[in-house]
Amino acid sequence: MPTYTAPVDDMQFVLHDLLQIDQYSNISGFDEATPDVTLAILKEGAKLSQELLQPLNQSGDREGCHWNDGVVATPKGFKEAYRTYIANGWGGLTGNPDYGGQGLPYVLGLAMAEMAGSANLSFSLYPGLTHGVVEGIAVHGTEEQQRRYLPKMISGEWSGTMNLTEPHCGTDLGLLRTKAEPQADGSYRITGTKIFISAGEHDLTENIIHLVLARIPGGPPGVKGISLFIVPKVLVTADGRLGERNTVFCGSIEDKMGIHGNATCVLNYDAAVGYLIGEQHQGLKAMFSLMNPARLMVGVQGLSMAEIAYQNAVIYARERLQGRSLSGPKAPDQPADPIIVHPDIRRMLMTARAFIEGARALAYWAGVQVDLAAKHPDESLRQEAKDLLALLTPIIKAYFTDKGFELTNLALQCYGGHGYIREWGMEQFVRDARIAQIYEGTNGIQALDLVGRKLPAHGGRAVQLLFSVIGQYCQEHHDNADLESFIKPLERAFEHLQRATSWLRQHAVRTPEQGAAGSMDYLHLMGLVVLGYQWAQMARIAQEKLAGGTGNQAFWKNKLITARFFMERILPDTAAHLTRIQAGAATLMALDAEAF
Amino acid sequence: MPTYTAPVDDMQFVLHDLLQIDQYSNISGFDEATPDVTLAILKEGAKLSQELLQPLNQSGDREGCHWNDGVVATPKGFKEAYRTYIANGWGGLTGNPDYGGQGLPYVLGLAMAEMAGSANLSFSLYPGLTHGVVEGIAVHGTEEQQRRYLPKMISGEWSGTMNLTEPHCGTDLGLLRTKAEPQADGSYRITGTKIFISAGEHDLTENIIHLVLARIPGGPPGVKGISLFIVPKVLVTADGRLGERNTVFCGSIEDKMGIHGNATCVLNYDAAVGYLIGEQHQGLKAMFSLMNPARLMVGVQGLSMAEIAYQNAVIYARERLQGRSLSGPKAPDQPADPIIVHPDIRRMLMTARAFIEGARALAYWAGVQVDLAAKHPDESLRQEAKDLLALLTPIIKAYFTDKGFELTNLALQCYGGHGYIREWGMEQFVRDARIAQIYEGTNGIQALDLVGRKLPAHGGRAVQLLFSVIGQYCQEHHDNADLESFIKPLERAFEHLQRATSWLRQHAVRTPEQGAAGSMDYLHLMGLVVLGYQWAQMARIAQEKLAGGTGNQAFWKNKLITARFFMERILPDTAAHLTRIQAGAATLMALDAEAF
Repeated sequence: MPTYTAPVDDMQFVLHDLLQIDQYSNISGFDEATPDVTLAILKEGAKLSQELLQPLNQSGDREGCHWNDGVVATPKGFKEAYRTYIANGWGGLTGNPDYGGQGLPYVLGLAMAEMAGSANLSFSLYPGLTHGVVEGIAVHGTEEQQRRYLPKMISGEWSGTMNLTEPHCGTDLGLLRTKAEPQADGSYRITGTKIFISAGEHDLTENIIHLVLARIPGGPPGVKGISLFIVPKVLVTADGRLGERNTVFCGSIEDKMGIHGNATCVLNYDAAVGYLIGEQHQGLKAMFSLMNPARLMVGVQGLSMAEIAYQNAVIYARERLQGRSLSGPKAPDQPADPIIVHPDIRRMLMTARAFIEGARALAYWAGVQVDLAAKHPDESLRQEAKDLLALLTPIIKAYFTDKGFELTNLALQCYGGHGYIREWGMEQFVRDARIAQIYEGTNGIQALDLVGRKLPAHGGRAVQLLFSVIGQYCQEHHDNADLESFIKPLERAFEHLQRATSWLRQHAVRTPEQGAAGSMDYLHLMGLVVLGYQWAQMARIAQEKLAGGTGNQAFWKNKLITARFFMERILPDTAAHLTRIQAGAATLMALDAEAF
Repeated sequence: MPTYTAPVDDMQFVLHDLLQIDQYSNISGFDEATPDVTLAILKEGAKLSQELLQPLNQSGDREGCHWNDGVVATPKGFKEAYRTYIANGWGGLTGNPDYGGQGLPYVLGLAMAEMAGSANLSFSLYPGLTHGVVEGIAVHGTEEQQRRYLPKMISGEWSGTMNLTEPHCGTDLGLLRTKAEPQADGSYRITGTKIFISAGEHDLTENIIHLVLARIPGGPPGVKGISLFIVPKVLVTADGRLGERNTVFCGSIEDKMGIHGNATCVLNYDAAVGYLIGEQHQGLKAMFSLMNPARLMVGVQGLSMAEIAYQNAVIYARERLQGRSLSGPKAPDQPADPIIVHPDIRRMLMTARAFIEGARALAYWAGVQVDLAAKHPDESLRQEAKDLLALLTPIIKAYFTDKGFELTNLALQCYGGHGYIREWGMEQFVRDARIAQIYEGTNGIQALDLVGRKLPAHGGRAVQLLFSVIGQYCQEHHDNADLESFIKPLERAFEHLQRATSWLRQHAVRTPEQGAAGSMDYLHLMGLVVLGYQWAQMARIAQEKLAGGTGNQAFWKNKLITARFFMERILPDTAAHLTRIQAGAATLMALDAEAF
């Protein structure tokens, strides 16, 4: 049976040594997030994840969810765990204090999401989706809508879902058919079928608040005629009590590769009562504004899955005795050495470790931008945070989840044949991690979003900002001989990224296919560089701490070794990405569709 | 439901245009393998795979195998399909005519294995493993043993298994504990537990011939005291009839990530009657000689899985309407264009295609070496074939299965959310493909075999041969302007391989950890270069055929485009592999085992 130990030390390092969130103590939320407080919260979150959520992960996979005439039951133990989760206030950790939330920084919620995702991805989706819907209602809903729905959603008594996909329409929402007929009382009647709705129906909460994209008849065709609606499973009276059951029902749940503990639902809307949120025909814009935080969360799932799989690969690699070290026996009193002595096992473990720690730094950096974008007193800094966040979101979503899948697989590989056997739990991590490359917009869509929208937006303002941040860091430390083995590789990789960006600027504006052809490579190239930037900073801090002799010296030493590994073995992939981008679209598009 | 269309045209191209197997018509087996004959055989194999095996693939995954008190039932339809398979003579296609085989070239068996693997990997393992055991008995068994076992195994009436792994001992066979007590009549009594035995027990054949590694008491410790035994499930009388049931029983079958249609068994040997095969204490060497063909077959499974997943991704990409082409609508009469118009979908399909066709060429080239090694009249050419085969085997096993897994995943990704849903069948390909990276020696072990054994063997004779073949090809076509865009990238990649080889020669001999640290990168680097060599040849042939105006012009045009894609987008990865190899072992081994 797999186990999980939340990486609280590393989380504290990122929050306080790397990001130095204490510098934002003039911003509400951060004022309370002192090292002592974050440590206490992370430790409580660790306890919950380790002791309550993780033990339900494998049984949840085995049992799956149960559908019976429209009613969905979650696996044994999920209901009780969810009750504890909300009773302990995790639902409202970062929520608006006006509606009962604790108002702590978003980045702490991200850390909690990382832990919950590692411990039990399927479970974590139930409260995770609610956060997105809360955000959507908070930004686009009327005050009356906020008062009616937010308190019970922030407390976790009600959950939320996002409804975009229909059988014939996923990425291309212009094809959407679900209809919303206006009623005399200002409400709408929603009719249509939505599919792939995560947590669309379940037994954890007494109500579920669906956000649904639909068309108001007579509106413009395509994506310009889509509006967003609140459709509660159970209607809510003006004074906030539960009223009639609405006519939205779960037609079936999907039989999937993984995340069996989460109900992926077909939802049938049969003239269900819905309430417009935001402006008519502006639904897509509203939905995107809440998809972006959701995409950041999905990116973190890649990190979560890599972490749990890595931890269990390490445990096995220390215990499994097989063969002898090439540099002489390491456990001469045993019949063989533990396989962690073998370089190729190390390669797999170090590859995972170098991603995980770099990704945590990058994700939490992005997490801080969420708060700065919303709350920083300086408007220009709010704008910078927004720009950075917009740019980093597709990278974190797609790069992290690609890596998350790759690394759960490397962790499985460390187990040899046992990795393929269900009882060891490693193959579940692979199956669960796989979904994150798909949902909230496939990774290919993230790459198009990056190259087609985020890069050119506002004349390239966001990418210029990012480049100036990285460029300045390189310049500042260029002559530091101690940092040479970190700054030089970063500079080389950064140069590849700049050349790729110039190439796209020259070619993709005129011929969008040239940009799309290299979009996935560009996303991975940028992912490598921003991770490299995190590692260069972490290496500098580790060196300073080692020189100063302060703190946990082993921690700093290991951080430095892992930074070196990243520079030597991971970052050099940038060159091949550049080559592929520069190859352009010609050969890619040359084959006739019939010739495949 | 997925479908399968065997790539018979491409197989014929590889056999006759690329490999020109007609040149070996002075060698038995090849004399019969004219284009007409191979086409007829491939078409029959295609029919069987498409119409009989493939329709049982998804149902076999759903149902799995059934264990009941030591008796194992295969999924519905497998028994009938197997009966047809052997009735049509597929078991004996390449078998020794002295024992009832048809004596056709090994490479034709490989092509049939590719088709069966694409259609139904789980099913294909039952006859597939038998081939390995037949080979083992043919090479190491006495004439009496051959007469007793081979006819019924070649006909497929009996099947075979290989028994190496024990609960505490996988890669490190020196730890093996199963005992073989000598008996007065010259036989042995085998006692112990073997795990992960593919097709270890089933209802397809009336007998199963197990090849079992065990220790004769008093022998040397470690791998030098291991012997190989024939242990029939049902004892066979001197005149070849079935006698008493032997005391080997299936204790359980594993619940696995995939290949549910194949029974992976725990086999308990309880003083079972066994017969020594080959010399006492020479069992490991014998087992390896039959593992090498098995590894080639497993490599082909990577190709098989990539092919079937690719085919179904293409079908979906042509049918699924979503979004518009960036260069203007391609299906203006439809609500959206088929997603095959999108560059990132193309990237995934072309990446798969470029691997598949290159891999088929490489695998069949290796397959021809099997026959040349055994039957070529010129001893020095037999030796060359053996050397090439020994070198290529770990590459084909590991590189192909790593790619097979990666590409089934890319194919799944083309389906978006539907790829994650079981009914579409794509996720089964991913789960099934995953095993091939593990069994018959994990891919990490293949890399060590390549760097630690195959490279230095006989003073590097094999690698020198390979390099002279590729070097000569490059030289010969260096000044051919028409081929420049194929030869130049190959030369650059080949140079990376040569530099990596020199680096290993300088560092790994003294410090084996330096070799092991780069072994997986070296294997992939060599995989890329040998695939690039195949593509450069195929590009040349395609150009000649296009210039000559002969044959199917569309086929040659598409071949050339795919070759170009390989050179532009796949081969450039060699540089990063070289960088990682040259990074050496220092950072990789720097972390204390406790620090992970």
